[in-house]
Amino acid sequence: MSIRIGILGYGNLGRGVEAAVNAAEDMELCGVFTRRDPSTVKIMSANVKTYSADDLADKKDDIDVLILCGGSATDLPEMTPKYAADYNVVDSFDTHANIPIHFAKVDEAAKAAGKVGIISTGWDPGMFSLNRVMAASILPRGHAYTFWGRGVSQGHSDAIRRIDGVVDARQYTVPVEKAIAAVRGGDEPELSTREKHTRECYVVAAEGADLERIEHEIKSMPNYFADYDTTVTFISAEEMKEKHSGLPHGGSVIYTGTTGEGTKHVIEYRLDLDSNPEFTGAVLCAYARAAYRLNREGVSGAKTVLDIAPAYLSPLSGEELRAHML
Amino acid sequence: MSIRIGILGYGNLGRGVEAAVNAAEDMELCGVFTRRDPSTVKIMSANVKTYSADDLADKKDDIDVLILCGGSATDLPEMTPKYAADYNVVDSFDTHANIPIHFAKVDEAAKAAGKVGIISTGWDPGMFSLNRVMAASILPRGHAYTFWGRGVSQGHSDAIRRIDGVVDARQYTVPVEKAIAAVRGGDEPELSTREKHTRECYVVAAEGADLERIEHEIKSMPNYFADYDTTVTFISAEEMKEKHSGLPHGGSVIYTGTTGEGTKHVIEYRLDLDSNPEFTGAVLCAYARAAYRLNREGVSGAKTVLDIAPAYLSPLSGEELRAHML
Repeated sequence: MSIRIGILGYGNLGRGVEAAVNAAEDMELCGVFTRRDPSTVKIMSANVKTYSADDLADKKDDIDVLILCGGSATDLPEMTPKYAADYNVVDSFDTHANIPIHFAKVDEAAKAAGKVGIISTGWDPGMFSLNRVMAASILPRGHAYTFWGRGVSQGHSDAIRRIDGVVDARQYTVPVEKAIAAVRGGDEPELSTREKHTRECYVVAAEGADLERIEHEIKSMPNYFADYDTTVTFISAEEMKEKHSGLPHGGSVIYTGTTGEGTKHVIEYRLDLDSNPEFTGAVLCAYARAAYRLNREGVSGAKTVLDIAPAYLSPLSGEELRAHML
Repeated sequence: MSIRIGILGYGNLGRGVEAAVNAAEDMELCGVFTRRDPSTVKIMSANVKTYSADDLADKKDDIDVLILCGGSATDLPEMTPKYAADYNVVDSFDTHANIPIHFAKVDEAAKAAGKVGIISTGWDPGMFSLNRVMAASILPRGHAYTFWGRGVSQGHSDAIRRIDGVVDARQYTVPVEKAIAAVRGGDEPELSTREKHTRECYVVAAEGADLERIEHEIKSMPNYFADYDTTVTFISAEEMKEKHSGLPHGGSVIYTGTTGEGTKHVIEYRLDLDSNPEFTGAVLCAYARAAYRLNREGVSGAKTVLDIAPAYLSPLSGEELRAHML
């Protein structure tokens, strides 16, 4: 029998999850739920209905895992504890500082309901966290470095769009190759924010806008750009559409450490993703499989990627994994 | 209270485990056990005794986890089931084809004894397996490529040493950079054995030996060298000692896959290890921590790296991991 999946929220991430569920042979998409008018939401899957989020009140017996595709700022802090009271849930909550409180709320709701809630999946937090923890556990004498990009930061792109005179913007976070090379060398360099990443901004300005002012406002924006070497390139709306409509991302966790009398080792985990939301959706989908299986074994409560054994992510049995994948 | 570790077998791997246990703040080495005369075995740790392997009959109450540092060909198939009847054990059994039967034997012994036996840890099988399984679970439409090296293959070095007229030998397995680049490109190339790796052999020959014959015997050796582009370089015993006394190794698992309408993604896990046995020993040590904790929770039976949640490897608590490492 297939694992019956519901998706709540149908933006880029929701579409990524939809594609991943359809690619998984052991899963079936049974509905996309939205806070918009469902008749206005067109999804990719044939024969799958869109519903109002309110309809989730009645779907408890029809959905094994509900994948929550809302944002971390305001949606998920409410959504995940709320729906964990009725469903096994998976989210991609990524406000690192608020993970402990989010975990506690989801844990309480999920335990009371006998459900599993896996939070903060995706790649960072998610796969990158898992690699940081495993590397530090194997080599306690060492140091983790995380580099992001080259990829589109949606938060930084949005920040530029809020500047007066900006019609559209796309910001790429770019890791500094020299810094990566220094880290791989194993000397555990201390790197400033500026030394690790640069920021490339592509901006469509309104006709007649003061380009010098826009560039200055971007480069001096605190937290977002002031601490980085930032380049601003003004382009046409056509060029934006043609060259910058994708959402690629990626990055690497590089851990260097020593054993014995100072023997050096490098552990590197690297992602190069042509679509950040499609890959993130695929990770959520794999953890939905884990949520389903854990719950069938009687487990309840909140979990993170650190609490899930890798075998739970795979559709293969333990026997198959040992025979062919180990 | 520290986790009390015993080491059985004191070759390169045993020394690697010893260094890792001493670097772990939550562990204590309580003895090195050997099948040799223990008085002839000098270990690095002060205030730790060496014992005969026979003494393990009496040490059940003194050791929380026994780390088995024997070879996969003949030692571990006997050793791991035997000692799983009395101890939580961890091994690095690496004969891929025999893992299912090894698992079954260890599982039976460990379950009967209420102990945990974690088999086939290290990096391949081990970390590489874990990355192959996770990547394939996230991106079911994709392909895994494993490259080994540049590093010393002890099996291949031994094979050369058995040739008449060879005094010493060191064989490096070297991944072909062009193949790695093709794989990273995401086109899922089909690669022959010859296209993926080359083999570099450094040989010290006996005085007056027929170098041409030795080179020919190496290059034509079935399974080991005949299917590879192999180079043979004759060097002096001094040069061997000076330049080739280490046991570096490493490699990468590169997984390329697609989502949605064919969007490409690359997941790469790479190790660059100055000492294969020290890193492998560090992995065994981290899994010893997991064996101890799982057993304290009442778990018993055989496990592989695929069955262990990452949090069990870390000395940090769940709260600490969520607050600082996720």
